[in-house]
Amino acid sequence: MAKKVQDALKDLVSLCKRRGFIFPGSEIYDGLANTWDYGPYGIELKRNIKNLWWKKFVSSRPDVLGLDSSILLNPKVWVASGHVGNFSDPLVDCKACRERFRADQLLEEKLGDGAAAGKNFEEIDAMMKENAIECPSCGKSDWTQPRAFNLMFQTEIGVVEGAGNKVYLRPETAQGIFINFKNIMDNVRPKIPFGVGQIGKSFRNEITPGNFIFRTREFEQMELEFFCEPGTEVEWYNYWKEFCMKWLVEELGITENKLRLREHAKEELSHYSNGTSDVEYEFPFGWGELWGIASRTDFDLKQHQEHSRVKQEYYDAVNNKRYVPFVVEPSLGVDRLLLVLLCDAYDVEQLENDERTVMHFHPSVAPVKAAVLPLVKKGKVKEKAEEIFQKLIKRWNVEYDETQSIGKRYRRQDELGTPFCITVDFDTVGEGESDASKLGFVTVRERDSMKQELVAIENLEAYLAEKIGY
Amino acid sequence: MAKKVQDALKDLVSLCKRRGFIFPGSEIYDGLANTWDYGPYGIELKRNIKNLWWKKFVSSRPDVLGLDSSILLNPKVWVASGHVGNFSDPLVDCKACRERFRADQLLEEKLGDGAAAGKNFEEIDAMMKENAIECPSCGKSDWTQPRAFNLMFQTEIGVVEGAGNKVYLRPETAQGIFINFKNIMDNVRPKIPFGVGQIGKSFRNEITPGNFIFRTREFEQMELEFFCEPGTEVEWYNYWKEFCMKWLVEELGITENKLRLREHAKEELSHYSNGTSDVEYEFPFGWGELWGIASRTDFDLKQHQEHSRVKQEYYDAVNNKRYVPFVVEPSLGVDRLLLVLLCDAYDVEQLENDERTVMHFHPSVAPVKAAVLPLVKKGKVKEKAEEIFQKLIKRWNVEYDETQSIGKRYRRQDELGTPFCITVDFDTVGEGESDASKLGFVTVRERDSMKQELVAIENLEAYLAEKIGY
Repeated sequence: MAKKVQDALKDLVSLCKRRGFIFPGSEIYDGLANTWDYGPYGIELKRNIKNLWWKKFVSSRPDVLGLDSSILLNPKVWVASGHVGNFSDPLVDCKACRERFRADQLLEEKLGDGAAAGKNFEEIDAMMKENAIECPSCGKSDWTQPRAFNLMFQTEIGVVEGAGNKVYLRPETAQGIFINFKNIMDNVRPKIPFGVGQIGKSFRNEITPGNFIFRTREFEQMELEFFCEPGTEVEWYNYWKEFCMKWLVEELGITENKLRLREHAKEELSHYSNGTSDVEYEFPFGWGELWGIASRTDFDLKQHQEHSRVKQEYYDAVNNKRYVPFVVEPSLGVDRLLLVLLCDAYDVEQLENDERTVMHFHPSVAPVKAAVLPLVKKGKVKEKAEEIFQKLIKRWNVEYDETQSIGKRYRRQDELGTPFCITVDFDTVGEGESDASKLGFVTVRERDSMKQELVAIENLEAYLAEKIGY
Repeated sequence: MAKKVQDALKDLVSLCKRRGFIFPGSEIYDGLANTWDYGPYGIELKRNIKNLWWKKFVSSRPDVLGLDSSILLNPKVWVASGHVGNFSDPLVDCKACRERFRADQLLEEKLGDGAAAGKNFEEIDAMMKENAIECPSCGKSDWTQPRAFNLMFQTEIGVVEGAGNKVYLRPETAQGIFINFKNIMDNVRPKIPFGVGQIGKSFRNEITPGNFIFRTREFEQMELEFFCEPGTEVEWYNYWKEFCMKWLVEELGITENKLRLREHAKEELSHYSNGTSDVEYEFPFGWGELWGIASRTDFDLKQHQEHSRVKQEYYDAVNNKRYVPFVVEPSLGVDRLLLVLLCDAYDVEQLENDERTVMHFHPSVAPVKAAVLPLVKKGKVKEKAEEIFQKLIKRWNVEYDETQSIGKRYRRQDELGTPFCITVDFDTVGEGESDASKLGFVTVRERDSMKQELVAIENLEAYLAEKIGY
């Protein structure tokens, strides 16, 4: 099992490097553990994901505002949020080989999801022994007692040495939204219910990062905090669960039966949450969390109100009442969604006389929208192809490829997940011997079906726009 | 002078907070020095800037590829690049009031641009004394000797304590491009000349941050490294200077006579550079650097080749030769360009019977493209206005405002820099008493001229698209 999983992921990692999606970080210096750099195609995929999320969750919604708070915040923020006190994992060392692991993960791998949820360190210690958990590295079963390892990166800011300059790299973007609640209320004056969305980097010094870009120490989040009247949070919690799922399936084209919504059991819930669900995806290494949707009550705003001594209230003018809003939070990782899209798209297909590797990206997320392929690299054919390319590249990321046979060019574009290949041939420019009716037409080949269709050049942009969706 | 400058900037800072562009960071916790959070309108402005840069410099150019490298890199990268050894400023303490300053900045404020360029610490010390530089804080002239203060933030990565885990937060995105040169060459195979562009956060522990978002410790960069054949770098250096200037003036609409290109004098140049220019803007506090355009020769790739022992060469198949490419780098700060756009747009206009604060953003960068204003908030007028709003918000960030008089709503949108206000009145829906010919027409009011124009609803989207440019 482990071997097979390794292989499935390995093939994808290899394709990602070979085709310029994702490179190992700092590779010429032998890397830096679990860091990854997005190559030319990876960054286009990432940009599409972020732009689609922003449009769907923020800018096209009159009830959601955007925000971009800094990574470095006053450290008191993390005291109030509970991260200084509680944002830690139970770290255990294998006494035999000295490798370090998260005890809760080891337990859940053996006993199933949520097995270690809500357990204190003594209980975890007891469970490790009772279940004779083996070291994944050396196989022994000789552990230190678990101890708390805080996951926040620390650094020092300013030029004055000494205490008081310690700051953290934010472990989530969400708190940047909560501490701006008052500024948004006072200066932009939205009416409840409303949300605030943000995209940005977060950092967690994970004990066991891994599985490619599934869990990395530096990652990017797309978080939405939706503020609502107490008592309406269940309705909104259900609304966002459905909204997120629909977006994944209907607009990003993710395979529906590889997604599931897992409602947290009572003992798994944070003490302040009255409902949390994970959207999970079936990765090559098993089901893993993609999107956390949590009803967080008024916990965060109340914590900041208490620690900052600044009121975090909403005034409802219609009913003349004041209250601290409740919050529903759909929180999604950019890199994790990108991994889902890669896994879901990746396929090695057996054709009649051939095999092809193909990325079945939805046209809206595909890094390259179309490739323009002249049948020959000279004369009117080349001229017309370049003219079409120059027009399309003003609107989308498109490629121009004139080297090797059309068949080989199709295969190259299949691996990149380019949904449309546009061939310009002699007929297009009126130099064909066969069919004068094809003058001004190009052949558009669709990636998945491999079917070809004649499209008039004047209709080409509208044809593509309709399929791509923007 | 200092007072007036303070005021001009203060008004802008105040507008930025009041209208939700930029909030002081961590404000409810009494802030964190020189950090700023982008509010709902600030982030839209920032997104527009980044998207326009990406389109112009990366995705619409067949000769430029995108990249997104991580913030945390192997620390050897910063040894090779020279940042560990040399990325430091001369820090001096005022012995009287204990405030800390950059000696080079103090000298340049008194003696002019480039006065401290290329000077070593002894020379700087001598200059501080000769010129009797006064402390900006207390006025005394009693300084410690300058000492090197490295500007890189440090943190520790991983769970194993002790040495070898120190990493830096990148002080520039550029090195992430250089260390991926080989991966891009091997896997994407572009032909020289080509560029690699990247947008991302960088961090510098500045001694004297300030002037609002002009100099902050956390900031975002848009950097392009353009690789070319040795001998062609001057041509490309000139090309990029012109290209960047044109973009600022012609496409972002920045006032031409507030921009200048300042060529570095020989003694100012880094030892490896054979040409560097700063695009400068006249901020309320004086001329300041906006964009650095540098011909960096093969310095960076050669450094990495030496330190990593991995060849950083390009193979020119046509001429059958190998070489380390030369590089021209246009490097721009997102926050700084945003500040330029804010300063350039900001105006308080005296009208005949009124005064208005207006942000003259170019439609392409304006955070809100249009506002839909129904004359009354009921009946067919409201219905039609909502219908128009729902259609436009699918494509752009637009607002709907129905509170208070049309005049007040215009003023609110002027302060946000919304280029177009669309009024729906009784005539629009055929309920007007005067003019039946206005059925199906809205009134579009242009922000700068305040002129109004009748536009047929069916042509409205095309009308706006043409002005906005996308």
